[in-house]
Amino acid sequence: MIDAPYGELEIGQRKVSKGRTLTEADVVNFCMLTGNWLELHANAEFAKQTMFGQRIVQGSLIFSIGNAMIPFDPEVIEAFYGCDKLRFVKPSFIGDTIWATGEIVRLEARGDKHGLATLLLEVANQREEVVMSCEFSLLVRKDRLKPVTGPQTG
Amino acid sequence: MIDAPYGELEIGQRKVSKGRTLTEADVVNFCMLTGNWLELHANAEFAKQTMFGQRIVQGSLIFSIGNAMIPFDPEVIEAFYGCDKLRFVKPSFIGDTIWATGEIVRLEARGDKHGLATLLLEVANQREEVVMSCEFSLLVRKDRLKPVTGPQTG
Amino acid sequence: MIDAPYGELEIGQRKVSKGRTLTEADVVNFCMLTGNWLELHANAEFAKQTMFGQRIVQGSLIFSIGNAMIPFDPEVIEAFYGCDKLRFVKPSFIGDTIWATGEIVRLEARGDKHGLATLLLEVANQREEVVMSCEFSLLVRKDRLKPVTGPQTG
Amino acid sequence: MIDAPYGELEIGQRKVSKGRTLTEADVVNFCMLTGNWLELHANAEFAKQTMFGQRIVQGSLIFSIGNAMIPFDPEVIEAFYGCDKLRFVKPSFIGDTIWATGEIVRLEARGDKHGLATLLLEVANQREEVVMSCEFSLLVRKDRLKPVTGPQTG
Amino acid sequence: MIDAPYGELEIGQRKVSKGRTLTEADVVNFCMLTGNWLELHANAEFAKQTMFGQRIVQGSLIFSIGNAMIPFDPEVIEAFYGCDKLRFVKPSFIGDTIWATGEIVRLEARGDKHGLATLLLEVANQREEVVMSCEFSLLVRKDRLKPVTGPQTG
Amino acid sequence: MIDAPYGELEIGQRKVSKGRTLTEADVVNFCMLTGNWLELHANAEFAKQTMFGQRIVQGSLIFSIGNAMIPFDPEVIEAFYGCDKLRFVKPSFIGDTIWATGEIVRLEARGDKHGLATLLLEVANQREEVVMSCEFSLLVRKDRLKPVTGPQTG
Repeated sequence: MIDAPYGELEIGQRKVSKGRTLTEADVVNFCMLTGNWLELHANAEFAKQTMFGQRIVQGSLIFSIGNAMIPFDPEVIEAFYGCDKLRFVKPSFIGDTIWATGEIVRLEARGDKHGLATLLLEVANQREEVVMSCEFSLLVRKDRLKPVTGPQTG
Repeated sequence: MIDAPYGELEIGQRKVSKGRTLTEADVVNFCMLTGNWLELHANAEFAKQTMFGQRIVQGSLIFSIGNAMIPFDPEVIEAFYGCDKLRFVKPSFIGDTIWATGEIVRLEARGDKHGLATLLLEVANQREEVVMSCEFSLLVRKDRLKPVTGPQTG
Repeated sequence: MIDAPYGELEIGQRKVSKGRTLTEADVVNFCMLTGNWLELHANAEFAKQTMFGQRIVQGSLIFSIGNAMIPFDPEVIEAFYGCDKLRFVKPSFIGDTIWATGEIVRLEARGDKHGLATLLLEVANQREEVVMSCEFSLLVRKDRLKPVTGPQTG
Repeated sequence: MIDAPYGELEIGQRKVSKGRTLTEADVVNFCMLTGNWLELHANAEFAKQTMFGQRIVQGSLIFSIGNAMIPFDPEVIEAFYGCDKLRFVKPSFIGDTIWATGEIVRLEARGDKHGLATLLLEVANQREEVVMSCEFSLLVRKDRLKPVTGPQTG
Repeated sequence: MIDAPYGELEIGQRKVSKGRTLTEADVVNFCMLTGNWLELHANAEFAKQTMFGQRIVQGSLIFSIGNAMIPFDPEVIEAFYGCDKLRFVKPSFIGDTIWATGEIVRLEARGDKHGLATLLLEVANQREEVVMSCEFSLLVRKDRLKPVTGPQTG
Repeated sequence: MIDAPYGELEIGQRKVSKGRTLTEADVVNFCMLTGNWLELHANAEFAKQTMFGQRIVQGSLIFSIGNAMIPFDPEVIEAFYGCDKLRFVKPSFIGDTIWATGEIVRLEARGDKHGLATLLLEVANQREEVVMSCEFSLLVRKDRLKPVTGPQTG
């Protein structure tokens, strides 16, 4: 592309995150943050009678970690625009390790200064199962923000 | 409806959450939980040069709190199925207070034992702005789970 | 009662909470919050020589979660007034699941606008043991506060 | 006392804690830990119409920090026995600084090996107001537990 | 360098982190994590009479964040070896924003498989002051660890 | 020493902390606080192929807890000055319990009002291994700060 208007972003670009193990502490922290102590996630006795037989990790947590893990160029990101076709296709359990993959599938202009970058975002686990997928859209800048730094970068 | 197959859930039912003020601590906690310290949320100096002029609250946090706040019958919820048309239409700032509204817009059978309940979920703030909307879908049970409780409910 | 002066509150009313599993993360979080790292709770080696043989969950945590779990009408609650006869009658261990029960045992007027609601509050576990009980008193309003909400409730 | 049966504890002994400033982060952390997002503590807009005019710090948090701050000999403490006459006499606001004072007012034998130590526990703030008081009782050991330590204390 | 034995690491290589604003929540979180509520950090009234006139951010927190912010190749890092000449040369206050700079100043072999990489690590703030410096040493691997990933990277 | 210019501090003075068990929650909390999710600490699958065979506790966490645990007189501490010869000589694993020992090895004047107190600080575990050592230096005051307290100490 001649003028590379969205920093390092191009259609077809694909990035894989590091892995992260989902712990009981993560599940408790997410109950705490959201205020939602649904017994599916927070009550080990209750969870025994569900279709999963044990507590499951919150879908919103998988989504929040998954989109945060993908290492795209932060200096062109203006805001989280939206998301479509988010689906949780397998449960995640305490102790599972997840990785996220993002592939840029659309880049559209939005006025003179911005664009919309859409990623196919997938999260998979150590059993080689895809547990979540979505189309994740970021509002990006054509002109990369200049870093704001202290004296040591002079 | 004759047999009320999804607990208290019915099309057209609408619930409004309590309000919650979004604090700097919430923004830091969400950076911590996701591992994403995007300067838009975590660097007050950097944020001055963005289109918002200040740090903004993470969209994923608004989404995570927003869907957690709606007080629907927890005993029929089996899992978070997915989400469509999630859009962040206004920024949220530190100190804003938000409320969520959920209205059931679809109830579909999924096999003999389950259904899919889709809510129009909206989050608004103290300036009477809608900041987020989405179609949020839960896998629900036709037979309500029986509560698992200790001896005090005998 | 003719004029239902305390929202939905009446003597004899009884509510049971959902259950919550007490995790190692909860115990660590409570050490962190209070600044009290008493080895009984925070040192697994030390705890082996105590009368319990293992780390126990903090009583103040059981109390704090227990009184928070009871789903009484929040719009009449003005403040936490006080507590009497708080007793921890059994230890709680990491991995235990607890439920709380509250029964309104006294409702007394306090001036023109307020009352004092006293609950018999009990916390029990999955072994059907009561672990904590107290008389828990809330200052309540005769006139229910009107909800403060955003535009979606108009 | 001839045999000093409860470590350093004696009737009339009095200890004052260090001070701690109550922050917005503490209030949010306590909402998170307990799962109780009562709008009195968590919604700045709602709090304006209460009798306090602003969010107040949770009583259970004052109690939890207050009893944790008193520096009594940890090696004789076996468990938190209970509490009586807990009263919150003034509200605490975000930004207040608190100190706790504990004075031993009763020491009673409980079988051969244990005793019950009761403290008059008070919490006060930088405006010289007592905000909380209670009679706080600990189960203590007559024989002090021997410290469990690593090799560096040999 | 012919065989690039330490991944991307070379003497003279220099990396600058993103910036992060130090919040009151960070200071409270670090008091919580360490169990150290030194009044210099945790008591706003006490802090008025110190040489700084206000609460200061913990040095250990500046050090912990500072060394974590530098984006060196994680796949060659085996362990944190040690640190020398750590000095806090200016105080950090709540609301300051910091950046870290790391420059590799030594690379030494340690047996056949490992090396020691030493960085001059500096942390500076928005007032263009260096607040911390140290020589920070990592044990690194000559052979880069192969990433462990899920199915999406096949 | 005639005038005891540094509060209770004297060369040769030695203090041993209480013990604390390092939990998975601590490791996750420290990843969260620092923003560093190095797979060595955060990915159980990745950690299997490292020289340790499992996740290890962060060195910076051992250092941060270790120096916080030593109970020296807080009223003479002005600031954390610096640290030398910090070495991590053994790994720490989730579930280990640690103790810290500090011995004052140097006391030097710094102008009229301050001194520099240097401790040999060691952290050891339940297997009687020293896992960390350093020379830890605090800026201390010759005149002890007077406590700032509320009305209850009058």
